[in-house]
Amino acid sequence: MLRKIKYTLIGSPLPSEMLAEKRLNKVRALAAFSPDALSSVAYANQEIFLGLVIAGASGLSLQFPIAIGITLLLVIVALSYAQTIRGYPSGGGSYVVARENLGTYPGLVAGGALLLDYILTAAVSLTAGVAAIASAFPILWPHRVWIALGLLLLIMFLNLRGIRESGTVMAAPVYLFLFSFLGMLLYGGIRAAIQGTPVSLAASAPAAIEPLGIFLILHAFSAGCTALTGIESISNGVPAFKPPEWLNARKTLIIMAFLMAILFLGSMGLTQFFGVVTRPDETILSALARRLLGTGPIYYLVQFSTLAVLAVAANTSFAGFPRVAAILAQDKFMPRQLFNIGDRLVFHNGIILLSGLTALLIIVFNGDSHALVPLFAVGAFTAFTLSQSGMVIHWFKEKKAGWQFKAFINGLGALVTFFALIIIGISKFLEGAWISVLVIPGFVYLFLKIRRHYHKVADQLSMHGLPPSLRPLPKPRVVIPVSAVHRGMVDAVNLARSITDQVLAIYIDVDPGPDEDELHKRWNKWYPDVEFVVVPSPYRSIVEPLLAFLEKTDHEHNDGQQAFLVLPELIPASSWQEILHNQAADEIKKALLYKSRQSGLQRIIIDVPYHLEK
Amino acid sequence: MLRKIKYTLIGSPLPSEMLAEKRLNKVRALAAFSPDALSSVAYANQEIFLGLVIAGASGLSLQFPIAIGITLLLVIVALSYAQTIRGYPSGGGSYVVARENLGTYPGLVAGGALLLDYILTAAVSLTAGVAAIASAFPILWPHRVWIALGLLLLIMFLNLRGIRESGTVMAAPVYLFLFSFLGMLLYGGIRAAIQGTPVSLAASAPAAIEPLGIFLILHAFSAGCTALTGIESISNGVPAFKPPEWLNARKTLIIMAFLMAILFLGSMGLTQFFGVVTRPDETILSALARRLLGTGPIYYLVQFSTLAVLAVAANTSFAGFPRVAAILAQDKFMPRQLFNIGDRLVFHNGIILLSGLTALLIIVFNGDSHALVPLFAVGAFTAFTLSQSGMVIHWFKEKKAGWQFKAFINGLGALVTFFALIIIGISKFLEGAWISVLVIPGFVYLFLKIRRHYHKVADQLSMHGLPPSLRPLPKPRVVIPVSAVHRGMVDAVNLARSITDQVLAIYIDVDPGPDEDELHKRWNKWYPDVEFVVVPSPYRSIVEPLLAFLEKTDHEHNDGQQAFLVLPELIPASSWQEILHNQAADEIKKALLYKSRQSGLQRIIIDVPYHLEK
Repeated sequence: MLRKIKYTLIGSPLPSEMLAEKRLNKVRALAAFSPDALSSVAYANQEIFLGLVIAGASGLSLQFPIAIGITLLLVIVALSYAQTIRGYPSGGGSYVVARENLGTYPGLVAGGALLLDYILTAAVSLTAGVAAIASAFPILWPHRVWIALGLLLLIMFLNLRGIRESGTVMAAPVYLFLFSFLGMLLYGGIRAAIQGTPVSLAASAPAAIEPLGIFLILHAFSAGCTALTGIESISNGVPAFKPPEWLNARKTLIIMAFLMAILFLGSMGLTQFFGVVTRPDETILSALARRLLGTGPIYYLVQFSTLAVLAVAANTSFAGFPRVAAILAQDKFMPRQLFNIGDRLVFHNGIILLSGLTALLIIVFNGDSHALVPLFAVGAFTAFTLSQSGMVIHWFKEKKAGWQFKAFINGLGALVTFFALIIIGISKFLEGAWISVLVIPGFVYLFLKIRRHYHKVADQLSMHGLPPSLRPLPKPRVVIPVSAVHRGMVDAVNLARSITDQVLAIYIDVDPGPDEDELHKRWNKWYPDVEFVVVPSPYRSIVEPLLAFLEKTDHEHNDGQQAFLVLPELIPASSWQEILHNQAADEIKKALLYKSRQSGLQRIIIDVPYHLEK
Repeated sequence: MLRKIKYTLIGSPLPSEMLAEKRLNKVRALAAFSPDALSSVAYANQEIFLGLVIAGASGLSLQFPIAIGITLLLVIVALSYAQTIRGYPSGGGSYVVARENLGTYPGLVAGGALLLDYILTAAVSLTAGVAAIASAFPILWPHRVWIALGLLLLIMFLNLRGIRESGTVMAAPVYLFLFSFLGMLLYGGIRAAIQGTPVSLAASAPAAIEPLGIFLILHAFSAGCTALTGIESISNGVPAFKPPEWLNARKTLIIMAFLMAILFLGSMGLTQFFGVVTRPDETILSALARRLLGTGPIYYLVQFSTLAVLAVAANTSFAGFPRVAAILAQDKFMPRQLFNIGDRLVFHNGIILLSGLTALLIIVFNGDSHALVPLFAVGAFTAFTLSQSGMVIHWFKEKKAGWQFKAFINGLGALVTFFALIIIGISKFLEGAWISVLVIPGFVYLFLKIRRHYHKVADQLSMHGLPPSLRPLPKPRVVIPVSAVHRGMVDAVNLARSITDQVLAIYIDVDPGPDEDELHKRWNKWYPDVEFVVVPSPYRSIVEPLLAFLEKTDHEHNDGQQAFLVLPELIPASSWQEILHNQAADEIKKALLYKSRQSGLQRIIIDVPYHLEK
């Protein structure tokens, strides 16, 4: 039944040969890789506004200058990634680039940062998208957590189904967003040109709470750096482009960076020009759209397309996270289940893990993208810095024609992103950056611990030095736990008697009374040749007295290496009936497999099912 | 490790002999059994207010008359239960009384109603308690769901620990509540006497939204009937009293009913006298307390004691629900695990089940006691009616001296509670009573279905007619699934070879490639005498191809009755490492035990563990 539900939700399994990927042309590729980068404007603007508004009008007058600074950063980082595309035409994610060029540890730091980054992309995009739509419909504002979780669930199921046609399906929201947003900016620009002089911020801005200091400016700048997130995505997916892959990917990157710059500078500029400010339950972008377009159908279209592009941006994490997790799993840094390909040819465990962690972040941070951004920026800029530094080393190692220029560009990228990372880390430390500063090394520790485990296991399982022997098994004692004299244990007793003459039936007595004698008599009537013992259980546990009895007596009755237990198990006809039976057999199996290690015995369990009918 | 956490939270196990109960004197007994009944005032008042306020001042002027009507009902029901105490000195819960006197089906209806009632007592008491404290601290108002869930968790853990000293610990909140509340009523009464003429409701009451009709009055009356909930609790616990049990219990019941009447009439009267009305984010009792005492320390004391007594009231469900569930489980109407006594000598499964269902109600109804009350009233009055009807039959059957009078009292009780049930069912139907009207028969259906299952199982397990034979097992084919040639499967292969000569190793190939030939060669090097087959798995599942292979080949290689599988299983040193390994062995075991029934074969699984070191 569970299987049926699963297949209805995610579709029936697909055979392995369907795994081959289709190549994307530039229009589709832009739609597939850019949503995360383009939609960053939806939260970066908000962060800059929130960072500056506390200094009142004089703070808000810095919106546009800060936007220009961040755009410069954007240009450098974009050029830098254009180099990465050339250097790693097979897809140069931060983890791969950093590990190959800087070594295992920096690679793992990049990997950890990247995983964190993907989780936060999903969480921030969803919460910012819900904030956009809740700005339009204030009645939704108090329910943002639930709406975000609902969207997350939807995206999770779509990804578990395996969205094959990502390029096509995703294109609609992306181009809708570009169309409506660029249209709004154009219209706003014309209105601004006609009006000529900007609206005075002094009139609309709230009173300053804090003086405008350098720290406050750096703070707003570092918050706005989230505008750059997602810019690296094309460099991860170069092989998905049509040939010549690197050239098409690079062109697409340039177009994307150009669009990012226009969206960001345009919206920041118009916000400042028209002196737009906002309430706590509306985003600054919504306030800008309302100011320019009024609360009419076009305004709603803009808000809806913002939600749609952010949902698609969250979806890009569902492609990225499972892939990086699978690469880490293949390198034995994460549980190997993350490398398993599920029924629908996707890394289903990675998708489920990402969904769980994203849901956790949304709940813990109460669906507030503003609270999540400091964590986000640290992860993103750590990955940027390591990836760019790795590229510098790459060019140094390669030393092909023109390598100095390439190394310079990447070096500049590494330097400015590192500088931004330091600013973010310091100015946002107490607001949540500390979490990322702890989590990333935590991930690295976990990665190393997991690999150590796998290596140890591999050593232990090696057949090296093992003599090819066949040890004849001595006739062992066989123990059967019984709960009553009933048909369900007849086969088990017969099987035990066929193995050995030393069979012992054991009854764990949780409720002392006259029943035991009765049981003993019935037993002797049926199996006079099989010994029967009653073990009292003052703490009403089935497992522990059984285990204690075995530990006490097994060594004298066996060869000290193996001990046998025959376990009669009633199997109900349908799985819902499971809950109507004590799961004693399961508990005994688990306990014997796991706890028996102390005794040094290898306990072999022979499970004899008895199938109940309907 | 899980065990350690568990013991830290709920304490280490207790031996069975500590099960004997201590008897309670009247003061302690009142504290133990009355919180639910006494605290009903906290939501009944609220319901009457909300029911009448929509008719404005003329509606609110009926508060006191309705309170008098409900108090009359209270007197009749209390007298009625005084008879139950005499008739069932061993504890006459509605289920027992209804089943013994009216038959199985009415008994099960009463049982279902009772279970629902306990769940709703917990949910309504917690949400009403949180509303009381959030009225005092409005900042808490939006977080009521979380606070209620936190309290629920706390109460759950306390009960899993097993609160032995219930009488003593519970006494403090109950007497604090009585002391502060009765004090407030006395003070209010004096002020009312000095003032003389009541405050005009016309001044304070909001405008009427609906006209004052008979339906509106019945509606408010039926909502206020929740003031009676909990009155039956003493009749369930007669054996806990000191001897003469029935007499002490009856005296305590009279005192409790008297206190209930004073609290209810007093608070309703003062509310109407002073023309108190309230906002949506404050309870009417809080508004009354604020009016009488101002927003000072005494007001906070009253609100805090209301929360405390309601939390204790919720706690009474944690004594009642698991006990009723255990009685039903003993009668085979519920899963037998509910009859198991846990480590701390409590019905731990019942406690966990109750907590889960209560949490579900709190979440679904958004922590709003007003939304829960219609469901609550139906359950409570169904149980009242059936229990009282059962008592009438009881006296008729017994026909001892004075039975006519006793039967008359219980008959009157049955009649008025049935009448109230009809009013509640009709007037509150659309507001949620329909849920209870569906859930109670749903419970009954489930009870019957569960019992049918247990009866069928018992028939199948009967040894009746079974010949006492020992069937010698033929030499079977034994199959070993392997994932690689490693040390972990050496013991398994040896064991299989010791059982039979027909051993077959099977490798499920999820990723076709040149590896298989390599593996085959290694296998032949180590075990030239054991056949090795590779089974491809185009859908990457381990279990299904294995099962399909066995289904196809087992019949020809075995006697058609039993088939053997030897399962090598790697056991990590600590359980957290489990997540680093594919749980293929577990999946295979589950699948073979459950799915193999189609083939008609009994599949015996021999589990050979290999213990990994740290």
